[in-house]
Amino acid sequence: MATSLRTLLPRVTSRTLTRHRPAIPQCLLHPQRRAYALQAPDAADPKLKAIDVSLLTTTTTTTPKDTIPHNQLIFGRNFTDHMLSLEWTASEGWLAPRITPYQNLSLDPATCVLHYAFEAFEGMKAYKDRNGDVRLFRPEMNMARLNKSVARIALPTFDGAAMIQLIKHFCRLDERFIPSARGYSLYLRPNMIGTQRTLGVGPPGSALLYLIASPVGPYYPTGFKAISLEATTYAVRAWPGGVGASKLGANYAPCIVPQMQAASRGFQQNLWLFEDVDEASGKKEEWVTEVGTMNLFACIRDKASGQPELVTAPLDGTILEGVVRDSILALARERLVPEGWKVSERRFHMREVCEAAEEGRLMEVFGSGTAAVVSPVRSIGYRGKLVSCGLPDDREVGEVTLKMKDWIEGIQYGEEEGHPWSWKV
Amino acid sequence: MATSLRTLLPRVTSRTLTRHRPAIPQCLLHPQRRAYALQAPDAADPKLKAIDVSLLTTTTTTTPKDTIPHNQLIFGRNFTDHMLSLEWTASEGWLAPRITPYQNLSLDPATCVLHYAFEAFEGMKAYKDRNGDVRLFRPEMNMARLNKSVARIALPTFDGAAMIQLIKHFCRLDERFIPSARGYSLYLRPNMIGTQRTLGVGPPGSALLYLIASPVGPYYPTGFKAISLEATTYAVRAWPGGVGASKLGANYAPCIVPQMQAASRGFQQNLWLFEDVDEASGKKEEWVTEVGTMNLFACIRDKASGQPELVTAPLDGTILEGVVRDSILALARERLVPEGWKVSERRFHMREVCEAAEEGRLMEVFGSGTAAVVSPVRSIGYRGKLVSCGLPDDREVGEVTLKMKDWIEGIQYGEEEGHPWSWKV
Repeated sequence: MATSLRTLLPRVTSRTLTRHRPAIPQCLLHPQRRAYALQAPDAADPKLKAIDVSLLTTTTTTTPKDTIPHNQLIFGRNFTDHMLSLEWTASEGWLAPRITPYQNLSLDPATCVLHYAFEAFEGMKAYKDRNGDVRLFRPEMNMARLNKSVARIALPTFDGAAMIQLIKHFCRLDERFIPSARGYSLYLRPNMIGTQRTLGVGPPGSALLYLIASPVGPYYPTGFKAISLEATTYAVRAWPGGVGASKLGANYAPCIVPQMQAASRGFQQNLWLFEDVDEASGKKEEWVTEVGTMNLFACIRDKASGQPELVTAPLDGTILEGVVRDSILALARERLVPEGWKVSERRFHMREVCEAAEEGRLMEVFGSGTAAVVSPVRSIGYRGKLVSCGLPDDREVGEVTLKMKDWIEGIQYGEEEGHPWSWKV
Repeated sequence: MATSLRTLLPRVTSRTLTRHRPAIPQCLLHPQRRAYALQAPDAADPKLKAIDVSLLTTTTTTTPKDTIPHNQLIFGRNFTDHMLSLEWTASEGWLAPRITPYQNLSLDPATCVLHYAFEAFEGMKAYKDRNGDVRLFRPEMNMARLNKSVARIALPTFDGAAMIQLIKHFCRLDERFIPSARGYSLYLRPNMIGTQRTLGVGPPGSALLYLIASPVGPYYPTGFKAISLEATTYAVRAWPGGVGASKLGANYAPCIVPQMQAASRGFQQNLWLFEDVDEASGKKEEWVTEVGTMNLFACIRDKASGQPELVTAPLDGTILEGVVRDSILALARERLVPEGWKVSERRFHMREVCEAAEEGRLMEVFGSGTAAVVSPVRSIGYRGKLVSCGLPDDREVGEVTLKMKDWIEGIQYGEEEGHPWSWKV
């Protein structure tokens, strides 16, 4: 299962890069602008060590923290007693995993993560079910995505199954921090950073994969609250050939100022549009991509047939491959299609959304992500107008949005028994 | 002179952002896709402190390092005895500057720089002239650019003139590390990171601006060595509405894998192309942008008139605003134009470069940046062919490239006396 085996040069600079693969890669022979799965040249060097779970050492804290009352939980503010850490070096591979008390990292000021954004992360949760058992939700999806993200920025890949074993150890150790009520959970943050201590711009010769955890409450403690999005074109989150499909730090800092500007006008988030020609019509359109912290779904009734369609943007390299997005699509295909729904991963543009809204065919819109599962959208600010997304004024959530939340939480909290997406720890 | 005054919310998350500016900004009334100078909403709150140079405290090291022999200097590997640090908080502003021994940073594993790439840096150098005086080269340009970069990612701006005063203090203290020979210098790395310790995605409520310094030798110790570039379209460095004009960590990590792939085929760097329609012809072209670590210049003889033209891409938001780029343009306007040259900041595409090369009109090509000043280019790999950039096989540098190096180094090392670009420390 060793997937972390590759050769990176220790302490290389841009001028001393040696040659990994003499062959011309497929992407150059057949240039694809959407080659977002771009990876570092891998040598699968069997001399490099894979993660070895049996080497895990655990040092428990001598100063256990108080747990926070449920009503005082703030997302990502307070953390559990411990953290999980794995160091990697280009000469040895993955060193022995360690669980230690939660503690500061000591980093040389020249460390490459601080200068060149060698960082990629995941967001996942541990849930406590009615029987007191701890559960993870599709953790293999998070590990696969993290491996894709780190490979895109020349950080080392790793054995996802071994990492899940370690995460289970961690969850058992800090189990008392997992709140036991529907809607509550322990947010898990795996993060990988490049730790090489030189300013030369090249692949890091060392890295640290670590995990911290923060107890969190329901995203909407008082029930759903529909949000408003500002459709944004003056800043562009992602581009074909860029890194928008990877969960990299690099995708987040540049989105904050537009988010603050949207907030100053009363919008909770940006809806990132991408201007591109519609191949069918030859006209420029503003395509819906994602929300930065969420994927976006729209329920649109077809003009001619009246058939309802659940639509979200396709995985073309400019949007994040959300785990909840994937789950919603699978559940919709399983449970909405038999009720007459069409389920589509396809490009859709703001003109289509606006037309559907004007004609009363925009049934509902919602975001999806690990934090809130689903997040109902009341309106979208677009070109100086407010597009109403189908919610009556006296309601905060649409029918499909609520169904999805119930279905997914039912699986996450083990209420839908034996579902393969829910992994007992 | 206080430019650092603004209000950011302490410890905000994406859900608790309050409203800064109720008015709709110009960029929305008149949408501009190239609005790369986008800034955080500033409130210019006079309660926040600006940098106060008079509060500087200095703690000198008790374990001074040996200086490295000149022939063993490697870029960004070894550092001087000290570092300069300035903390900022959203409630207080800039705290007292400190010079301390070079030491590790102690960062909570939840610190936002490690997750969301809140980081922006500069590259500049201190030179020792023939009289033993220490000099900086256009430091106000670096401070202005850093302010632009940090503002783009909601980090605090600062008084550049005050920071230059502090950098001068630092250079005097670590003066013994500045090598005293033409081509040698002390590389200075100002870096700003967001230090807020929460996982909420929002503007950092605290930040650290610090400076470290590494003695460096000439980029080409044995004289110039012309490099080869791989023209790259399968990955895209920057785009309109993105952050390619800012010196952010976010622009670097995503370029490493393409750099490794180019290296595997024998190319030292990528030449980032950007595909876009030529408004004149209506046809798609692949426009030359920059090299990632350098700007790019081409010397092309006009087909009709035979006039030589020095051309580089314009500052359209997709390329870094290089200090050396600006210096080359100014020197060319002053010293090449009287010799009959045309100097242009304009878009130019690979088809134009290829045609000029085929017709013997491509005189020379070079990169520009702080590390090497100028870097001659022998060839560009493009669509499976090698475009020769005008250098005879037995030469490593063209005439204009060499002139520029001599002119700029003459100013940097104070040999061209009294030049306003060279600041005595």
